[in-house]
Amino acid sequence: MDRELVAALFERLRDGDRTALARSITLVESTLEGDREHAAELIARCLPHSGNSLRLGITGIPGVGKSTFINAFGLALLAAGHRPAILAVDPSSTRSGGSILGDKTRMQDLSAHPEVFIRPSPTGGELGGLARRTRESMLLCEAAGFDRILLETVGTGQSELEVDLMTDLVILLAIPGAGDELQGVKRGIMEIADFIAVNKADQVDAAVLERTMGDLRNAVHLLPSRSGRTAKVVPCSSITATGIDELLKLVETTAAEELASGVQEERRRSRSVSLLRRDLTRELFRLITGKRSIKEALDVHEAKVRSGEEDPFQASQAMITLIRKGV
Amino acid sequence: MDRELVAALFERLRDGDRTALARSITLVESTLEGDREHAAELIARCLPHSGNSLRLGITGIPGVGKSTFINAFGLALLAAGHRPAILAVDPSSTRSGGSILGDKTRMQDLSAHPEVFIRPSPTGGELGGLARRTRESMLLCEAAGFDRILLETVGTGQSELEVDLMTDLVILLAIPGAGDELQGVKRGIMEIADFIAVNKADQVDAAVLERTMGDLRNAVHLLPSRSGRTAKVVPCSSITATGIDELLKLVETTAAEELASGVQEERRRSRSVSLLRRDLTRELFRLITGKRSIKEALDVHEAKVRSGEEDPFQASQAMITLIRKGV
Repeated sequence: MDRELVAALFERLRDGDRTALARSITLVESTLEGDREHAAELIARCLPHSGNSLRLGITGIPGVGKSTFINAFGLALLAAGHRPAILAVDPSSTRSGGSILGDKTRMQDLSAHPEVFIRPSPTGGELGGLARRTRESMLLCEAAGFDRILLETVGTGQSELEVDLMTDLVILLAIPGAGDELQGVKRGIMEIADFIAVNKADQVDAAVLERTMGDLRNAVHLLPSRSGRTAKVVPCSSITATGIDELLKLVETTAAEELASGVQEERRRSRSVSLLRRDLTRELFRLITGKRSIKEALDVHEAKVRSGEEDPFQASQAMITLIRKGV
Repeated sequence: MDRELVAALFERLRDGDRTALARSITLVESTLEGDREHAAELIARCLPHSGNSLRLGITGIPGVGKSTFINAFGLALLAAGHRPAILAVDPSSTRSGGSILGDKTRMQDLSAHPEVFIRPSPTGGELGGLARRTRESMLLCEAAGFDRILLETVGTGQSELEVDLMTDLVILLAIPGAGDELQGVKRGIMEIADFIAVNKADQVDAAVLERTMGDLRNAVHLLPSRSGRTAKVVPCSSITATGIDELLKLVETTAAEELASGVQEERRRSRSVSLLRRDLTRELFRLITGKRSIKEALDVHEAKVRSGEEDPFQASQAMITLIRKGV
């Protein structure tokens, strides 16, 4: 790809062309050395046109009904005149049911709609899934005119941090039932939720639903929310679309308040130095392990550490010595 | 310091000499280039003698009574024939009341005891406190014969991850009262707790204590514990030493079970590759920003990112370009 092609891609992307957007994200995610400069140029072009969306995290364990919820929520966004883009944060390997692509049947209303962009989840990626350039993809979606970005995640491991760094508001999906059924919610994720939507509310007794909501309200009352507010717990059903409009209204009202008061801007800014450091450390790591000899040595040391043969400290020292010599 | 001095330091450390241990930790924490090789050698010598302790995280917000609790818990450990070492994870700047050193009055029984090692909290540190080599300090303590390592932390920000990566079991201290008073507990920390000790149990009505414990049991029931168990909620008083022996017994029984079943070893091993990657990225970052020109450029870009003048992506790109040129 040369500079002219990047310029052409950018023009089409700015026109809201979803194929161009998909190609752009592929370019940005590429680890090929030759693509990196072009990706950087494309992002630089998009930056002045980015930032004008509401960035929403949608999280919940597999089986909670995220795809069906996103389908219903996305339709509600469309009805309200928005253009939603859906990006998956986690590598598909961590999911039970495969990538969003596989879930497209559960998002069929949405995926057929011309005003919606859906990006399937990445197929793995180095650094335990950390390599996905979700934030840059988000900037591209914004430049393409998508004004509601939904970051879908199963909320495991690193993705909690990603969601916290990249979103304005977070919706956690839960299912009604005994408390034990919530055990699957991974550590930390409940505490970054601004809203907890108890999904599949139509499928259980009113008493079970009430108890679940009561339990959740109890729990969030004890936990701090990242916004300083207590998370709101609401019932919904993606199938019958019950409660979806109410939730959307709640989300939009909160977002509008935070936009007006400057809280949104403040939150984004407070995350920005962390984002820089995270990006820089990741790029440094990539730069260094781009050398085959370094990468091979790292593989050997990681295997030794995993088997208990070597302490992480020893392995790190050996790697640094190697890098100092090689650099 | 030369090699002979390192050898002498190691010998004294192995004899359990607390002054030698303190000097060793200072050496390991040193950012002076000349100290790094010696530090690495000292740690390498200590490694074969490390790992034989129970690594306990003690966490809770300022004001919850951590120092007084550690004083009482440490005395109970001594009575049971153990040698406790206490290390603070967080930089003192994040604490309300100053470093452990300042808290020594609240640990006076402990700090006067010849079988106890107390390391004051670090005085800041680069990378937002991440620079402290807590894990290496822990290895030194183990080599010096301390068999119960208490990592004290206020449970904010990165320290949750540190505690999760480095400990076998975690005790979270809470105070009795309304749920709102627990709001200070930072995100994620409740979910890595194996035990929640409701401190100052002697200072409130039985009804208030019961309600707090009920609320906490409710909350932990809804959250996953990292061990797959639900955290145990127990009352205690550091002043009257009520409940301390019972808590210690609970902790020791759990630890013994996990040691026998291999769960402890498995947990430590599963964290080890993360520890290597974390250490390596940190060292790489330090290696690169060790160049004055790089460090100055980073400061400039961070300021721009903080003020919103530059996007983190742009800043990262600019830094990488600079580093590629410089390397």
